Amino acid sequence: MSPESLPAFAAQALTLLRARAPLVQSITNTVVANFTANVLLALGAAPAMVDIPREAGPFARMASGLLINLGTPVPSQAEAVMEAACAAAEAGTPWVLDPVAIGSLPVRTALAAQLLQQRPSAVRGNASEILAAAGCGAGGRGVDATASVAQAEQAAMQLASASGAVAAVSGPVDFLTDGQRQIRLANGTPLLTKVTGGGCALGSVMAAFLSLANSRAEHLPLAAAAVLVYTIAAEMAAEQVARQQQGPGSFAVQFIDRLALITAHDVLAHARVLGIERAGAASVTSSVL
Amino acid sequence: MSPESLPAFAAQALTLLRARAPLVQSITNTVVANFTANVLLALGAAPAMVDIPREAGPFARMASGLLINLGTPVPSQAEAVMEAACAAAEAGTPWVLDPVAIGSLPVRTALAAQLLQQRPSAVRGNASEILAAAGCGAGGRGVDATASVAQAEQAAMQLASASGAVAAVSGPVDFLTDGQRQIRLANGTPLLTKVTGGGCALGSVMAAFLSLANSRAEHLPLAAAAVLVYTIAAEMAAEQVARQQQGPGSFAVQFIDRLALITAHDVLAHARVLGIERAGAASVTSSVL
Amino acid sequence: MSPESLPAFAAQALTLLRARAPLVQSITNTVVANFTANVLLALGAAPAMVDIPREAGPFARMASGLLINLGTPVPSQAEAVMEAACAAAEAGTPWVLDPVAIGSLPVRTALAAQLLQQRPSAVRGNASEILAAAGCGAGGRGVDATASVAQAEQAAMQLASASGAVAAVSGPVDFLTDGQRQIRLANGTPLLTKVTGGGCALGSVMAAFLSLANSRAEHLPLAAAAVLVYTIAAEMAAEQVARQQQGPGSFAVQFIDRLALITAHDVLAHARVLGIERAGAASVTSSVL
Repeated sequence: MSPESLPAFAAQALTLLRARAPLVQSITNTVVANFTANVLLALGAAPAMVDIPREAGPFARMASGLLINLGTPVPSQAEAVMEAACAAAEAGTPWVLDPVAIGSLPVRTALAAQLLQQRPSAVRGNASEILAAAGCGAGGRGVDATASVAQAEQAAMQLASASGAVAAVSGPVDFLTDGQRQIRLANGTPLLTKVTGGGCALGSVMAAFLSLANSRAEHLPLAAAAVLVYTIAAEMAAEQVARQQQGPGSFAVQFIDRLALITAHDVLAHARVLGIERAGAASVTSSVL
Repeated sequence: MSPESLPAFAAQALTLLRARAPLVQSITNTVVANFTANVLLALGAAPAMVDIPREAGPFARMASGLLINLGTPVPSQAEAVMEAACAAAEAGTPWVLDPVAIGSLPVRTALAAQLLQQRPSAVRGNASEILAAAGCGAGGRGVDATASVAQAEQAAMQLASASGAVAAVSGPVDFLTDGQRQIRLANGTPLLTKVTGGGCALGSVMAAFLSLANSRAEHLPLAAAAVLVYTIAAEMAAEQVARQQQGPGSFAVQFIDRLALITAHDVLAHARVLGIERAGAASVTSSVL
Repeated sequence: MSPESLPAFAAQALTLLRARAPLVQSITNTVVANFTANVLLALGAAPAMVDIPREAGPFARMASGLLINLGTPVPSQAEAVMEAACAAAEAGTPWVLDPVAIGSLPVRTALAAQLLQQRPSAVRGNASEILAAAGCGAGGRGVDATASVAQAEQAAMQLASASGAVAAVSGPVDFLTDGQRQIRLANGTPLLTKVTGGGCALGSVMAAFLSLANSRAEHLPLAAAAVLVYTIAAEMAAEQVARQQQGPGSFAVQFIDRLALITAHDVLAHARVLGIERAGAASVTSSVL
């Protein structure tokens, strides 16, 4: 896949997602659960937050995709996420790990290490979180990224190679890798960092897109498609908010609107793919990906 | 009560609700708790989410009405809902059960069966959930209705007869029954299914309206009044959203606005009561209800 | 500090807050967690809801400020708040207690009594809650204030003297005291009581402002600054909502917008400081405060 063909791939994936309406189990923190569910609904997916022991596992077997976000891992949820991850790994349900604020906080850091054993399809976080997930660095101060994306790229490569997951680092430029290929995407808006769940909800959108995969090799381009659709919708909403001299409250509302209204054409028109490279090689324009 | 008189009854109930500002204890899932509380506040009720053991029971004795929603029944909440339901049954507090996604998920399905023993005033759900509550069918996939309202009507009749509760099936046409009388209402908008909590918040609104009952016989028309006010407000918000080419984010905001602004006259002007029938009889136009 | 100088102090504090972006740990109820985080983000602070045992304590040591809100104290959160309060007291992290609905509800009432031993920097609540925290009265019905601010003023004085905390009573006129000085502020809008979290989120904003203190003596004017900025932003949003004939849904959105857009000049132009008095003295116009 070349930088030129990724937008068309993302646009097709969006159309397919809306046709399939994948059931996305979202085990996430209490702060962003509502926003996450509304993001999925707007996009055309079906959210289900089944996050208690004895239900999370069985549900993960029948769900189309699964998000595990460690934002507020109360004891029963911590038990449920292990159950869900194991079930997803066994049943082949694609699943995304969002290791919120791991590094310095002990409970979630230990939990993330265990979860990484269950072959997540993708790990999405900010630079600090990806560094911590790769075993480098001590993590951020809460949900804030204190490391830059560039610093985290090497860690993301290691994490992807070691875990078999796509590693996705969110930032002004989004970086995604499967350990071999590297994708850099430049859509988005700083307003996404001014709405709680701006990062977390992307994890569930990634789970929705990964549910469309025919093979593990498609995880990387589908994760990139999720980032493109999500950040382009955010960018379009931010433009409208700027025109109307509004703030982050209106942005959150218009972002949800835009996720429902965004078209395949919008994705093609706005995508900024900075490059797709193969590790150790120059920029690649293969159509294989 | 005739189809012609139900809108006027609903309009009066709305006025009475605003005058009384009933205290509605809402034990609900973490995804929709915020939306539910804002819906109640907009309408003129006073929400209180007291959902921990040793508090949920005492509070249910003094609350005007109670909602128990099984969307995310973590262990402490599962304990609290039994406590609250028993206290409500003893104290005569009207209460509504929303058996979210029961059928295939074991914890909540067992819990719903126990709760049904505590004489709920109403059970509200989508077709799949009402089928499962009546012991028919295996439930839906999460919060999605996979069965049609028509399929669920027979199950709703059985459920109402067996439990003594009003059974309310949400769908394009809403169906309500107390086992004898049947009411079909046709207001609403598909946008309600595009906002998380679109169904769940109706349960708490129903609890608010049931708090106005002078006798158990009034539970059915009051539950229908709740559905009318709620779905008419949604319909009016949806019209505005369509005019402004917005999406589900704006709809959620304007729906809350409309619940605060809706008048008795709006209810009269927009209500679509398809029919009120007595079981085994033709359409009835009695004023008894 | 005179009534004339408080607005300028509040305006400077707002500017400083935005420059520092304090990390505000918010252990709060599930109903308002999302709104609270968005309020903090809009204002320029960095929210983090770290609320589980073994993480809440360590995080409270490194946070700039801490809010403990007792709205839905599930068992693990009840354990976490004690851990966090002790750590904050030890490390000198300013922290705010919001004793939601204490008085009649046994679990949170006992918890609040224990927390008050850990030297909170401020206690914020409605009149009923402050009365209950001071050991007078049996508290309100849920989050509703059933006592008036005037009734609670004496209780607030006692509470502040006994605990060493600023006591802040929210109402049509806000009253704040450190046991010696008394401040009355008259900004705000009834719409704040029509959005869930309208009171709760103020607690976290107060924690953000208290993080700017150079000494304990600055807690009172900083708590007052928090109230001024918050209620002025609300007032400005309410004016816009009234002009556009909208309701509480739109108010919540525009309030978030306004918290991001409010300027030091807005604070100066809108502040209504009714008076600053020293206990047992006439109105004081000292610049010491």
